[in-house]
Amino acid sequence: MSALVVEGGSARLKRDVPGPAPVAGEARVAVLCAGVCATDLALVRGYMGFTGVPGHEFVGLALEGPFEGRRVVGEINAGCGRCERCATGDSRHCPRRTVLGILGRDGAFAQQLRLPLANLLPVPDGVSDEQAVFAEPLAAALRITEQIECAGRRVLVAGDGRLGLLCAHVLALAGAQVTVAGHHPGRAALLPPGVRHVNQLLDGDGPKPGARPGERAAEPPEERWPLAVEATGNPAVLPRLLRHVEPCGTVVLKTTSERHSELDLAPLVVDEQTLLGSRCGRLAPALELLASGRIPVEEFVAARYPLERASEALEQTARHGTLKVLIDLT
Amino acid sequence: MSALVVEGGSARLKRDVPGPAPVAGEARVAVLCAGVCATDLALVRGYMGFTGVPGHEFVGLALEGPFEGRRVVGEINAGCGRCERCATGDSRHCPRRTVLGILGRDGAFAQQLRLPLANLLPVPDGVSDEQAVFAEPLAAALRITEQIECAGRRVLVAGDGRLGLLCAHVLALAGAQVTVAGHHPGRAALLPPGVRHVNQLLDGDGPKPGARPGERAAEPPEERWPLAVEATGNPAVLPRLLRHVEPCGTVVLKTTSERHSELDLAPLVVDEQTLLGSRCGRLAPALELLASGRIPVEEFVAARYPLERASEALEQTARHGTLKVLIDLT
Repeated sequence: MSALVVEGGSARLKRDVPGPAPVAGEARVAVLCAGVCATDLALVRGYMGFTGVPGHEFVGLALEGPFEGRRVVGEINAGCGRCERCATGDSRHCPRRTVLGILGRDGAFAQQLRLPLANLLPVPDGVSDEQAVFAEPLAAALRITEQIECAGRRVLVAGDGRLGLLCAHVLALAGAQVTVAGHHPGRAALLPPGVRHVNQLLDGDGPKPGARPGERAAEPPEERWPLAVEATGNPAVLPRLLRHVEPCGTVVLKTTSERHSELDLAPLVVDEQTLLGSRCGRLAPALELLASGRIPVEEFVAARYPLERASEALEQTARHGTLKVLIDLT
Repeated sequence: MSALVVEGGSARLKRDVPGPAPVAGEARVAVLCAGVCATDLALVRGYMGFTGVPGHEFVGLALEGPFEGRRVVGEINAGCGRCERCATGDSRHCPRRTVLGILGRDGAFAQQLRLPLANLLPVPDGVSDEQAVFAEPLAAALRITEQIECAGRRVLVAGDGRLGLLCAHVLALAGAQVTVAGHHPGRAALLPPGVRHVNQLLDGDGPKPGARPGERAAEPPEERWPLAVEATGNPAVLPRLLRHVEPCGTVVLKTTSERHSELDLAPLVVDEQTLLGSRCGRLAPALELLASGRIPVEEFVAARYPLERASEALEQTARHGTLKVLIDLT
């Protein structure tokens, strides 16, 4: 089959990749559509030491199992099924897990992928392929509301990119008062009513260059939030974002980067702030939300490429300000 | 009066420092005994851009106010009294606060200091000067139990120094199952019964040099904890400590450093861990605990110096493995 393969720091299309072999308890899926995520770009650059087929956002046709012939999406974490974590239903944190297109399991930028039967969810008829491919990133945004009570709270979302928009929608639906800080004033049109968009709030208002560690600017910024979400993927933003968070407030970290953060942790201790890592969410609520039509994910699609041009899909995603790029296999 | 003064990157004794002037609503205190903390060393090295008299752990004689003539300890944060934070009793996070010996207010390495009347607490008769000087660091350790439920939980304390020992005692009293990781096997004798001491757990088991960011060692360590406390003051420890914390677990950051941490935040996101800053606690419960005699703080005293030799007290504190050094003004 054809697949995009990451090897030695680059990704290229191969036409002679063996398709996934049948495995008991797992199902092969013919990919219909896949989404490109910043994590895919990081994997190509060396994050996690990844080799293989990337891609973890997809909708496809199940080729076997109880959903054979139906459209499915899939939970990307496949646990060992035997450890304490798996016993409590938390395969997302199984220490021996594989993760679709990220860790030890080939992903969705291919004609076929394979996942455990238990990971697959049928897609409701009213949800288009284009919508369904957002199930995984939308679940990741919903994960915030699983971790933290958001209703009625003022929340600052850093980043008006793909993930930032999804987070803003999810938080607004959860009853939060949302402000999005980004670089694209046009994105305000993609936010739900009542969500404020501010431009360049997080640019260059950190400690002055040459400031002594721990030293503060003379005054904290006028507006600070009790809760913030880091969805820029840029490690340089976090120190600036923390300045906009109230004492005893929380920053939810939604993005991974292959770059390290150089972080002055002293202000976090002094202000008793919390950093909370947040990764994958459950797909069932995300599918329900997509079926409700309450989030206009179609408007977040920037471009579509056939699998043969998957490298171009990654290149476009890497350009600053690109929304969701899809790889179309239909 | 005599005082140790920090100026231009060094600290030296001056004999002609003006004593604190009387101020309405505040009381002058004749210092009896002061404790040296790692923060004092950081201030000398430039942390917070500090200039003035350091020292924030003390017991003294109140020279005016309702406790005149009595021994007192003092909350170190002095709020503005007018902001929202102060209105809710949280002067610790008042944006315009001064902090004794740390921010905008001369401290305890002097014959006299001054604090708001509301900050002073009388010391019970059964508590010695030597014990009372531990009220502030003990309150900082107790702060953890204000922030997080610890009873019945397995907790790893990183560091068997001054603060690590206090944290271990406080957590054990709160009903946690405590393990202390440090470099001083002899410290086991200073821990309460039932607390385990392990040597060098956190040495060099982080990602291998040259590892790609986000890349993990082949296997996570055998023993991981749901809750850990960073009390080493060494920013290099945190990445290693995170590897010993379970997915969805928490690291409480107790120490500030003037050095930045270079931190790979990707594992924190992937494991959905929490970093929680933790600073000052309330002194009243700390005084009660000292009065109970349940924590043998006297055994944590490494040396005593007269104020004239305060520089030596700081030098000794800076040596690896030094327990609490006191400055004695009686």
